[in-house]
Amino acid sequence: MVDLTQVMDDEVFMAFASYATIILSKMMLMSTATAFYRLTRKVRNLEVFANPEDCVTFGKGENAKKYLRTDDRVERVRRAHLNDLENIVPFLGIGLLYSLSGPDPSAAILHFRLFVGARIYHTIAYLTPLPQPNRALGFFVGYGVTLSMAYRLLKSKLYL
Amino acid sequence: MVDLTQVMDDEVFMAFASYATIILSKMMLMSTATAFYRLTRKVRNLEVFANPEDCVTFGKGENAKKYLRTDDRVERVRRAHLNDLENIVPFLGIGLLYSLSGPDPSAAILHFRLFVGARIYHTIAYLTPLPQPNRALGFFVGYGVTLSMAYRLLKSKLYL
Amino acid sequence: MVDLTQVMDDEVFMAFASYATIILSKMMLMSTATAFYRLTRKVRNLEVFANPEDCVTFGKGENAKKYLRTDDRVERVRRAHLNDLENIVPFLGIGLLYSLSGPDPSAAILHFRLFVGARIYHTIAYLTPLPQPNRALGFFVGYGVTLSMAYRLLKSKLYL
Repeated sequence: MVDLTQVMDDEVFMAFASYATIILSKMMLMSTATAFYRLTRKVRNLEVFANPEDCVTFGKGENAKKYLRTDDRVERVRRAHLNDLENIVPFLGIGLLYSLSGPDPSAAILHFRLFVGARIYHTIAYLTPLPQPNRALGFFVGYGVTLSMAYRLLKSKLYL
Repeated sequence: MVDLTQVMDDEVFMAFASYATIILSKMMLMSTATAFYRLTRKVRNLEVFANPEDCVTFGKGENAKKYLRTDDRVERVRRAHLNDLENIVPFLGIGLLYSLSGPDPSAAILHFRLFVGARIYHTIAYLTPLPQPNRALGFFVGYGVTLSMAYRLLKSKLYL
Repeated sequence: MVDLTQVMDDEVFMAFASYATIILSKMMLMSTATAFYRLTRKVRNLEVFANPEDCVTFGKGENAKKYLRTDDRVERVRRAHLNDLENIVPFLGIGLLYSLSGPDPSAAILHFRLFVGARIYHTIAYLTPLPQPNRALGFFVGYGVTLSMAYRLLKSKLYL
């Protein structure tokens, strides 16, 4: 039987595990940020409609309705969250397979560091908000890193 | 050569595979639930605009347009689906790496069970809908379980 | 110590890595498609509200505001992107675990090929757009393939 704890002795895989956990934890903070902005701004606005049962604490009937509106700040956090999801999912899938394909450790760790740094910068640029092209820069660095891993993986291990 | 079928002999990994498959299948049911509500309510409302080609069966021209509106019930299923996605992606990534880091089997299986139970409860609370804080409870239990796995993983295997 | 590069010698796992990387790269192209349509149509419309800082290049003050609207074409790309995300995440999770559960290689590769083909067809049908049921066909083939992998995985390796 394979002792699975040994899989984690691989340097690249251990680094991937650490960086992936950090960036996923950061993404989870976005849910908390949405809830925080909702409470401080007393709005409930998931997409277009809200959940009426969530407003009960703020008032009843017509009084509750006024909280069922959208708010610029909350929408911004939600867009940043969705953008995270759209970019972290490919990183997780491609990064995991890339880690298992036997890459050069220093190149692999550079990829992971760049991605995590770029996504954290993207979130800061989105939420502050910093003027463009700060956010675009964060986005494209993360995007390029993922494509670079995909290219290296397919070049060494393509099997269709 | 490593015989990959042996990887699945590990108790924790096999449990993770089972629970992850169950919760992903549940998430896929949300797509079907959206389609079901759309057909029974005859609405097409992905986000703000709909796809005109989807209404053809219900009428032509102006008659079709009236189906291009939003519906509270369908929006609710969509929000539950997006919330699932936002929470199940971190569970998959962190849970997979945590399973490989050699955790105590009974602690690991308790984490998986709590997460799957909490997310199913969250969906029921969202779609019924049950009054708050039922949904919030389901959300925070799942959230806490994922963070607990992330903490244990980083504590034992941090490599930056 | 396990040599992780050997994991990739497994035929099924190598095929899964290739197909998963291809479909994730396709999904990433959707971000670029959104940006492309935004620039050619000069709109910024993430969900309901836009980011005012993104319009600066097109004008100042009231002149910028007119670009803060929604556009049918851009919304369509965004819906296709979200649908991709909702279907590719279960494929990644279930497909990875299925690849490790020792399936018949030819059956496994058929699953991966069908899924990737169906999702590419779905995107073409969504963006052209082709009349229904083209898009629904692409969706249900991908959906069925994922459920079939989940069923085989749970049948052989259920451990709760």
